[in-house]
Amino acid sequence: MEHISGGVCAAKGFKASGVHCGVRKNRTKRDLSMIFSEVPASAAAVYTQNLVKGAPIYVTQRNIADGVAQLALCNSGNANTCNADGEAVAWQMCQLAAEASGVKPEDVIVASTGVIGQPLPIEPIARGVKPLFEALSADGSHDAAEGIMTTDTRLKEVAVSFSVDGVTCVLGGIAKGSGMIHPNLATMLVFLTCDAAISPAMLRKALSEDVKDTFNMVSVDGDTSTNDMVSIMANGLAGNKLIDSEGEAYDAFCAALNEVTSTLCRMIARDGEGASRLLTCEVRGAKTLKDARLCAKSVVCSSLFKAAVFGADANWGRVLCALGYSGAELNVAAVDVTFRSSAGSITVCSMGSSVDFSEELAKQILLEDEVEVLITLRDGEASATAWGCDLTYDYVKINGDYRT
Amino acid sequence: MEHISGGVCAAKGFKASGVHCGVRKNRTKRDLSMIFSEVPASAAAVYTQNLVKGAPIYVTQRNIADGVAQLALCNSGNANTCNADGEAVAWQMCQLAAEASGVKPEDVIVASTGVIGQPLPIEPIARGVKPLFEALSADGSHDAAEGIMTTDTRLKEVAVSFSVDGVTCVLGGIAKGSGMIHPNLATMLVFLTCDAAISPAMLRKALSEDVKDTFNMVSVDGDTSTNDMVSIMANGLAGNKLIDSEGEAYDAFCAALNEVTSTLCRMIARDGEGASRLLTCEVRGAKTLKDARLCAKSVVCSSLFKAAVFGADANWGRVLCALGYSGAELNVAAVDVTFRSSAGSITVCSMGSSVDFSEELAKQILLEDEVEVLITLRDGEASATAWGCDLTYDYVKINGDYRT
Repeated sequence: MEHISGGVCAAKGFKASGVHCGVRKNRTKRDLSMIFSEVPASAAAVYTQNLVKGAPIYVTQRNIADGVAQLALCNSGNANTCNADGEAVAWQMCQLAAEASGVKPEDVIVASTGVIGQPLPIEPIARGVKPLFEALSADGSHDAAEGIMTTDTRLKEVAVSFSVDGVTCVLGGIAKGSGMIHPNLATMLVFLTCDAAISPAMLRKALSEDVKDTFNMVSVDGDTSTNDMVSIMANGLAGNKLIDSEGEAYDAFCAALNEVTSTLCRMIARDGEGASRLLTCEVRGAKTLKDARLCAKSVVCSSLFKAAVFGADANWGRVLCALGYSGAELNVAAVDVTFRSSAGSITVCSMGSSVDFSEELAKQILLEDEVEVLITLRDGEASATAWGCDLTYDYVKINGDYRT
Repeated sequence: MEHISGGVCAAKGFKASGVHCGVRKNRTKRDLSMIFSEVPASAAAVYTQNLVKGAPIYVTQRNIADGVAQLALCNSGNANTCNADGEAVAWQMCQLAAEASGVKPEDVIVASTGVIGQPLPIEPIARGVKPLFEALSADGSHDAAEGIMTTDTRLKEVAVSFSVDGVTCVLGGIAKGSGMIHPNLATMLVFLTCDAAISPAMLRKALSEDVKDTFNMVSVDGDTSTNDMVSIMANGLAGNKLIDSEGEAYDAFCAALNEVTSTLCRMIARDGEGASRLLTCEVRGAKTLKDARLCAKSVVCSSLFKAAVFGADANWGRVLCALGYSGAELNVAAVDVTFRSSAGSITVCSMGSSVDFSEELAKQILLEDEVEVLITLRDGEASATAWGCDLTYDYVKINGDYRT
């Protein structure tokens, strides 16, 4: 497996584009994106578990119930959520995309992201969708990634090539996500494309399994979004033998999927609203996988520990505190905690108690851009990793006045 | 029932004191507090559900297993948590209090609050406990309340008088709590005193029921502390007939208890680390009490909504979002949201969708010190209230470098 350029257009037969259509007032920011497959593709998606769901979620669910899609359309600047006419507007978006492209409206993955509870005007999208389709290009991944950004400060795209039965396939994706990030079975907006041939059923299975270890293990602020969606289209143009059961080819596909999604997870956490540091928590030696995940996620979710990381304060007591309320089973008296970064590694807690350590070195380690917390339990063999970021003044600033 | 002065000393036979002993380096801050009953009292307590528990929690649990206590001793500046010798030190504290006071060491409620994971030196406490006992006074509630404060900016004390079978009784308390506030069946440090005669079993029952609607409905930052404890001593000196079963007298006691604890809850939330506003969320019309509590607590816990309140931004979409991921059963299309304060009242969401409202008036309402969010569901008859605060730059500042 190898990382390559091209993002969501890296896989054969996929083009993308992003334009400014006017949903946002800021005229320099692209706010409408399209991803197009030359041929109908196997499709799957996972969605937010929030009971308050964006209208596009319901429309996309219906559209890809048959496991097929060919085009994704997404606007930023307005989430089309909590609007009485929301589903009608989302379906109009599918029809507009269909008219412009010749794709069936039921083969459109539709998404919106931005402010909740403000009606989404269809006019800017009606005006923008034709230029958007005409702008489709094999170099369009950047533009599409920009068109779905909200408070994101960095573009998020990634692609890998991998081999299935000796045939080279490519899987790539783009993502947006910076705040309201605390996924529950799905998260943020992520569009993945792949040229491998894989049945809708196996694609669904691969995606559902993968998110448990990837997007479900990211948290920026503990708020589960209303519009989270991870979608994937696999169009088969690589020419591999159709993957329709478990086995070596399916495993190769899942490994590529995991490489792409875990890379996007790190990008999303690193670009958390206001974040100055990427925080990774790795838990080893847990009794069960569930316990490992609960522990890792609890640490990256703790406001107190996140503020300490912002201050480069080696306040490991807050790590123990977060483990204690995580809901995981653990033997507190057998916990080790180590902080690690490019500046070095330091154990700050051993067997659940304080150890002497150099505050100076600890501070150096925590001042780096990427900080890892390694937790060793002595309860079993399970491990898990979660990603988050520090809690900063800028998070408060960004969210103190987001709408205006 | 009537609010009276005197805090934790308002009830007959209780004295209190607070001194500086040296656990803290700041020599002007009291850091050791004592509450003393002239006679042994019925006692009960509820404790943090965090698996990582402060050492004093274990010692207090053992000491009041028999339902009797006579003295409470608490230091601030060090939580005595995650220390290998923690329980031995906590028990030494009981013995020192016993030597100074003549009370049995097993009748001491012991508590510590402050930094986790630093050994608690016994010397300052050994030096301080005698002057502390000698300083006991019926006017000592203020000093005791100050001695247990950490990042708190306000003293928290309250007392009420009430009638049981025609006999006037008094129930009062002091509390500390400002950060790491997200109780789970118990919270923070709260010491309650009462002169009513009530059996340990009924006292335990009253306290356990009460915290579900009071301390368990407060959140400052989503972090459940390791040292949370709410304790109560009731010494019977009011002269009422012993309350040893349910009935009118028990109900009068529970009403007084609820008045004191809910007042302390508001004080704690209002004094949340960095808080500029008290945020109260009242949910009505929920299907079950559990749903009502989940909804109310989810709203006051949402980092995004808390930041919006700081910015006086009427971002009600974040309220809907928090209801959606609360875990409660609700019909999203039947939700109303109203913001209220001394500046007025404004409905911002009706039947789950946006309504036209004056942004100007909404801002005025949200700029007040105390802001209420009223949520009407149309799923049933249950209601609940939760307390929290806004998320501010100062929260990040306070917690970015707490230890040094």
